[in-house]
Amino acid sequence: MLEELKQQVYAANMRLPKLGLVTFTWGNVSGIDRARGLFVIKPSGVGYDVLTPEDMVVVDLKGDVVEGRLNPSSDTLTHMVLYNSFPHIGGIVHAHSPWAVSFAQAGVDIEAMGTTHADTFYGDVPVTDALTQEEIESAYEENTGKVIVKTFAERGLEPDAVPAVLVKQHGPFAWGPTAGKAVETAKILEVVAEMNYHALQLTRADIRVPQYLLDKHYYRKHGANAYYGQKSK
Amino acid sequence: MLEELKQQVYAANMRLPKLGLVTFTWGNVSGIDRARGLFVIKPSGVGYDVLTPEDMVVVDLKGDVVEGRLNPSSDTLTHMVLYNSFPHIGGIVHAHSPWAVSFAQAGVDIEAMGTTHADTFYGDVPVTDALTQEEIESAYEENTGKVIVKTFAERGLEPDAVPAVLVKQHGPFAWGPTAGKAVETAKILEVVAEMNYHALQLTRADIRVPQYLLDKHYYRKHGANAYYGQKSK
Amino acid sequence: MLEELKQQVYAANMRLPKLGLVTFTWGNVSGIDRARGLFVIKPSGVGYDVLTPEDMVVVDLKGDVVEGRLNPSSDTLTHMVLYNSFPHIGGIVHAHSPWAVSFAQAGVDIEAMGTTHADTFYGDVPVTDALTQEEIESAYEENTGKVIVKTFAERGLEPDAVPAVLVKQHGPFAWGPTAGKAVETAKILEVVAEMNYHALQLTRADIRVPQYLLDKHYYRKHGANAYYGQKSK
Amino acid sequence: MLEELKQQVYAANMRLPKLGLVTFTWGNVSGIDRARGLFVIKPSGVGYDVLTPEDMVVVDLKGDVVEGRLNPSSDTLTHMVLYNSFPHIGGIVHAHSPWAVSFAQAGVDIEAMGTTHADTFYGDVPVTDALTQEEIESAYEENTGKVIVKTFAERGLEPDAVPAVLVKQHGPFAWGPTAGKAVETAKILEVVAEMNYHALQLTRADIRVPQYLLDKHYYRKHGANAYYGQKSK
Repeated sequence: MLEELKQQVYAANMRLPKLGLVTFTWGNVSGIDRARGLFVIKPSGVGYDVLTPEDMVVVDLKGDVVEGRLNPSSDTLTHMVLYNSFPHIGGIVHAHSPWAVSFAQAGVDIEAMGTTHADTFYGDVPVTDALTQEEIESAYEENTGKVIVKTFAERGLEPDAVPAVLVKQHGPFAWGPTAGKAVETAKILEVVAEMNYHALQLTRADIRVPQYLLDKHYYRKHGANAYYGQKSK
Repeated sequence: MLEELKQQVYAANMRLPKLGLVTFTWGNVSGIDRARGLFVIKPSGVGYDVLTPEDMVVVDLKGDVVEGRLNPSSDTLTHMVLYNSFPHIGGIVHAHSPWAVSFAQAGVDIEAMGTTHADTFYGDVPVTDALTQEEIESAYEENTGKVIVKTFAERGLEPDAVPAVLVKQHGPFAWGPTAGKAVETAKILEVVAEMNYHALQLTRADIRVPQYLLDKHYYRKHGANAYYGQKSK
Repeated sequence: MLEELKQQVYAANMRLPKLGLVTFTWGNVSGIDRARGLFVIKPSGVGYDVLTPEDMVVVDLKGDVVEGRLNPSSDTLTHMVLYNSFPHIGGIVHAHSPWAVSFAQAGVDIEAMGTTHADTFYGDVPVTDALTQEEIESAYEENTGKVIVKTFAERGLEPDAVPAVLVKQHGPFAWGPTAGKAVETAKILEVVAEMNYHALQLTRADIRVPQYLLDKHYYRKHGANAYYGQKSK
Repeated sequence: MLEELKQQVYAANMRLPKLGLVTFTWGNVSGIDRARGLFVIKPSGVGYDVLTPEDMVVVDLKGDVVEGRLNPSSDTLTHMVLYNSFPHIGGIVHAHSPWAVSFAQAGVDIEAMGTTHADTFYGDVPVTDALTQEEIESAYEENTGKVIVKTFAERGLEPDAVPAVLVKQHGPFAWGPTAGKAVETAKILEVVAEMNYHALQLTRADIRVPQYLLDKHYYRKHGANAYYGQKSK
């Protein structure tokens, strides 16, 4: 079942090592079929060199495996919470990419400091609160999803406009309309984190961009008035 | 039309990913035919893996597309302003290369700190002012060109001697006599930015080089008395 | 003798350059046959481009060469001490990987700052004391092993739970149940060091993770209740 | 003439881009035939992708070209001074490798902070004084050599024991018994600079190694009692 989606999610997973986002098996991508309420995700701990489309695992929105001979990613329930809470997203990536993890460990938001950021993220990429002891000891992966949702709610962020987050002491999750787009966003997050890190070491000034630059660059690429790229026919 | 220039501009664009200067489609190169008053530029948002010489777009010096079935780079009007204002330049590159963007975000000039810099840039590479809200909301790309021209005028810089700039909160533009040379300058800017960043973290001393070192190294490679490289026959 | 182990140790050594852990010949891997009390180690100063499985040297637990036409790694006696003192380990890696060496030179522990760390290391990776003049001038390599063992004893660390160390002014040693696993741990140490370095530059706050996060992530991957990856049949 | 030496010097030059030590043509290697008093050096400004052994230029110890149809490296007279002043060296490298240049620009010695350093450099790698205006305006390349020789004399350094230097505001020179060994030393200098940079950002403590560690590691690899590597037959 869902053979086309499996193929897409497989291809999206395979881009992670090519884009330098994973060491060993430290990453996973999923994609959802919203009509059926099922998502497809990488199996846990399987190397990218041996992964096949058939290895992908099908999971429902309660987190139960519907098809697949392998265990799904240990982060499956985090993906589930995000799919249930963010109704427009079609794909999710988690990866221990080094620059984004550094910010997650430091507990420092990736602030919007330039157009590279504003082209993809309509504002700062937030760091969540740390999970409490109780949240970690019970339903850890589900609580990881919940702390992301809580962060977006508390800060009044729109997940379609800010398609990534840093889970404190852990690392990034990124998402998008498809698994493939989510992977591109994860790469952009990594590059933006690298640029921000170096900018922060160069100056102690507040170098966040103003709202009107965010507006200009974000809407140059997104929405009805976007004019970057080629018009789809 | 301009088939040879299209081929050159295409080849120059294709060097950007090879030199590590772009992520995804974040860069564009143009080249001008001064006799005809037309420049050739990469189409907007087209991946380097599918780009062909025929995809190049021909634009006149008012910014109107003269030939091409694709939209030109969204930065086309910035290129136009630079071609109109800097009469000797034959090619322009814009790329979100990480080290140069970090300086642009921090608003820190790339100061001349050594011979690597002085071989190509006869003095500091300046950061422009940030665009104002009005400049961003109206004719954004044209105003990006204008703030570059204003920066060179206010600082008394000669664009042929300092063939690059950092647009604040955005990133670098580099130029040269041809599209190919502009790409080399963009790469040199990136390497020089990396070296300067690390030097700045190692010391708080003022480590700008004196004028006589700039003179020596710049004119070792440029002008009538240059003695680097092989004499052209 | 020990042909299969030689093959494994050879293959583990060959992963060092592929994983970016060595420059020239600056690394060595060994693996032990506990039943026979013999370990196999890379020969000293032989380039990875010419290394063969037959070049591996067999050494006993007193440090004497039992088989092999080449000199064993100059660090052989350090490996010997670790095999004698840490009875569960099956493979050891030493490499001058740049991030881990930077921490070893600075004398700064690689603190547990996130889940990437906690997945592999159940607590901080310690830096040893510097060797004294006497320890360096007599039985240097053996004393390098002893200062590692002393560090683990003094800090009450379990070598199976914290499978790596930084020898001050020198660099990392990592180990594991097999030579291959030890190489993976050496790579993880390098990535974790890189992430920690950048996190430390981003904040002066104490960003060590709490014990309950260490418990959760370490035991998600290790021990009877591990649920990461696929069950072995 | 000197066909074998040309071949060696060509091969040594070709290792510079493979080892990541040069951007474009920013590096040159030479090697000397002491018996004839002639050295062979890369031609100026020729790309590594088109370089051939026949392009190598033969120069005598007064700096005059003896054979070759191309201009020799613009740094030829610096090489000449070093060959005349340091009688044991057989090969020299100059490259604008980014980490070493950063230290040269900052004017910060590469201090001996660990065994990686001590294996090759028997003490700190010094930064020279900056050249004066007069030294730059007259006989610049020769004066670059002279300031290196002066630095070694003033600090009482032995060029065979500390086979590299950083010319202030410029970059590194490295040397060795052959052109090939000099290239390896240039690479080691780059890696050691990278490690030192990161160690310096991690701590403000004085982390230079003691003399007895320098003695141990340097003489483990050099001199009559060296025991690293395989005995030459």
